[in-house]
Amino acid sequence: MTQPESSDQYRRLRVALLGAGAVGSQVADLLLRHGDELADRAGASLELAGIAVRDVDAPRDVELPKELFTTDAESLIVGSDIVIELMGGIEPARGNLLLALNSGADVVTANKALLATHGTELFEAADQVGASVYYEAAAAGAIPIIRPLRDSLAGDRVVRIMGIVNGTTNYILDRMDSEGADFADVLADAQRLGYAEADPTADVEGHDAAQKAAILASLAFHTTVPLDAVHCEGITGITASMIDEARAAGFVIKLLAVCERITVDGAESISVRVYPALVARSHPLASVHGANNAVFVEAEAAGSLMFYGAGAGGVQTASAVLGDVVSAARRHIAGGVGVGESTRANLPIVPIGHVITRYQITLEVNDQPGVLATIAGILSEGGVSVATVVQTVEGEDDTTARLVIGTHRAAEQALSDTVENLAASEVVERVVSVLRVEGE
Amino acid sequence: MTQPESSDQYRRLRVALLGAGAVGSQVADLLLRHGDELADRAGASLELAGIAVRDVDAPRDVELPKELFTTDAESLIVGSDIVIELMGGIEPARGNLLLALNSGADVVTANKALLATHGTELFEAADQVGASVYYEAAAAGAIPIIRPLRDSLAGDRVVRIMGIVNGTTNYILDRMDSEGADFADVLADAQRLGYAEADPTADVEGHDAAQKAAILASLAFHTTVPLDAVHCEGITGITASMIDEARAAGFVIKLLAVCERITVDGAESISVRVYPALVARSHPLASVHGANNAVFVEAEAAGSLMFYGAGAGGVQTASAVLGDVVSAARRHIAGGVGVGESTRANLPIVPIGHVITRYQITLEVNDQPGVLATIAGILSEGGVSVATVVQTVEGEDDTTARLVIGTHRAAEQALSDTVENLAASEVVERVVSVLRVEGE
Repeated sequence: MTQPESSDQYRRLRVALLGAGAVGSQVADLLLRHGDELADRAGASLELAGIAVRDVDAPRDVELPKELFTTDAESLIVGSDIVIELMGGIEPARGNLLLALNSGADVVTANKALLATHGTELFEAADQVGASVYYEAAAAGAIPIIRPLRDSLAGDRVVRIMGIVNGTTNYILDRMDSEGADFADVLADAQRLGYAEADPTADVEGHDAAQKAAILASLAFHTTVPLDAVHCEGITGITASMIDEARAAGFVIKLLAVCERITVDGAESISVRVYPALVARSHPLASVHGANNAVFVEAEAAGSLMFYGAGAGGVQTASAVLGDVVSAARRHIAGGVGVGESTRANLPIVPIGHVITRYQITLEVNDQPGVLATIAGILSEGGVSVATVVQTVEGEDDTTARLVIGTHRAAEQALSDTVENLAASEVVERVVSVLRVEGE
Repeated sequence: MTQPESSDQYRRLRVALLGAGAVGSQVADLLLRHGDELADRAGASLELAGIAVRDVDAPRDVELPKELFTTDAESLIVGSDIVIELMGGIEPARGNLLLALNSGADVVTANKALLATHGTELFEAADQVGASVYYEAAAAGAIPIIRPLRDSLAGDRVVRIMGIVNGTTNYILDRMDSEGADFADVLADAQRLGYAEADPTADVEGHDAAQKAAILASLAFHTTVPLDAVHCEGITGITASMIDEARAAGFVIKLLAVCERITVDGAESISVRVYPALVARSHPLASVHGANNAVFVEAEAAGSLMFYGAGAGGVQTASAVLGDVVSAARRHIAGGVGVGESTRANLPIVPIGHVITRYQITLEVNDQPGVLATIAGILSEGGVSVATVVQTVEGEDDTTARLVIGTHRAAEQALSDTVENLAASEVVERVVSVLRVEGE
């Protein structure tokens, strides 16, 4: 079954699979069913040598030959040409991949948590032995973004990436936007429908997006971006009324991973951050609906590019994994050493305070004469210049009003200091929300 | 200037550039200005050894050092590690690239006409010597589509590609759609603004899109698709009223390159065609405006993907060319042989008659009782099933009516036979238009 007739002409490569969850079982199934085609494309016969799992008898999404399963990952790894890691988590995935590289195998992984925290260690281990680490499935599911960033744009300078890289949060925000529903209600429904996990923390707090942002920024800026250098805010504070106000102003709220080249004190630097941001409804990212993902890339020469597709899903992610397996196989056949990651630019990563963008500040204020002058004064003192003010009267007693203030571009630090001063002012009852505007 | 200080640590690679037009002069400029960065990314110092041109003194878009120019392409090529061909046309481009490959160089080209007609010859010459042919800029300008198709989706099965791959025609159709203007007027304006050439034939007749379709289909289906196997229709017959009627039915007209896997008589086959088609306004391709390009890819496992960006322009295309140069340099440094094109699937390419899709037929008919029954009879006899009919009365004398007939899916051959019968019927005054519907 693993050895289709017509592939006998090819050299055989031993492929080890670690993990047989939603993605792993699809990868195994496609390897077995499409063996002939894959052999033709890779120029090598891909022999699935085994699947390492914790529990051989656990139920799988796809039926797979029982004899392929083993609990002994290490024996499977040693002697393999290509090792596919789809276990997730840090250990034993990290140890297994280091063993694989040191045994001379190329590795394929979709493990974004591992890459965002131990990527450098893996890339260096690969460089040592002339092997390669492939990870197309780790950044945006089935959307091919790694090769475009690493190869196609290698002769260009990426200026900015804005990515919708988490399907769960895009699904939630999109439904909040189209239905006027509350976060908690949509989250509960998303959990029921399988779009969100029972513990949704990694998605809704932005941790998953932050891991992907670290991977994308490292590639785009040829600089190692550690996970803890990524500023991260989630969407749990987004309310139906914030989305209403965004819509009224021509925006939609999206959880964005922003990776940006910026100049701080004359030095070229980068900023990497994840937060819910206002995006103009006319921007291509605004029309990314449901659980889909998209990565919008601005480069000096190439201009604006967008890559769009399914961000997750077992079989979709399996497509990206198998593309990597074919690439690894071709490299094995072609000979030569693997091409490592280029992190030689080594740009400084600046904290969020240096980021310059526009803001939309919503305040609940006393509805009395002179309030606007007081607030304008606080903003002006803080160095934050006002572009637009929209006032709406709130409540039946007419004692409070709501002000939506759109600022000109300002530094995050100046803005947050100013917001503190606004909150402390006696004319301000409440700072309802502060949102950044991206993609202008 | 070509040898930045910090790149002294790297091995030097000799780069020859053939052609210094809109793209070539930008490539030379970026190679010279970003030498340091490119060296870091490539792991090799890229020394621009010379630029072969017909006329050394011709004016250029970008000022370049005079001493780099030569009219002796052959001497420049021999001894180079990487040869970039941006001359266009078949000869001397073909001869120069064969010389380059046989001298052991990797080659980078943006020459879609050459690849669509002599691609196989070049790929085979590269295979013979273990070199590679890079051509990211030949298929969709700056949009990275070659690596995603060849590498990222190598483990998947592409089912269909629908591409807006010609900026000039998309610009014209988009303006006709938004302004209600006529083809000839918009074309004249596009020529004045530089969006269309003085001789617009290659664009408006679909020839440029057909070359790109041949390249994309070859890659996606691992099959050599010769240019003459691509069915090609242009947009010169598209009128303002066709666009109006399309809008009324919820469609926009786009010139599409469609590459499709289809089953004919039980055999897996492919169809490659370029024509103006109706696309639902809700489809992602419908929102590709102006001179932008986009490639929509449907794959068995990955689902729907879209790649969007600028389709042409000197500096945008230069980005794609330089990405290829860095890839070629990395391969030189890594060693090993180049990875050839996989055309081992070798699927049969079927003529347009076998294509199955939906159609929108607009007829001018006598406005008298029984006409609809006659027409329905002709369609039914031809095996074409009707989904919708919309009748609009035309003219002041009420003697003719216009019928817009939407069919169910039918084979192109059955459809065109039936349209002939309709045209011959005495109740039909004129077949106004027949358009295919794509993307459903």
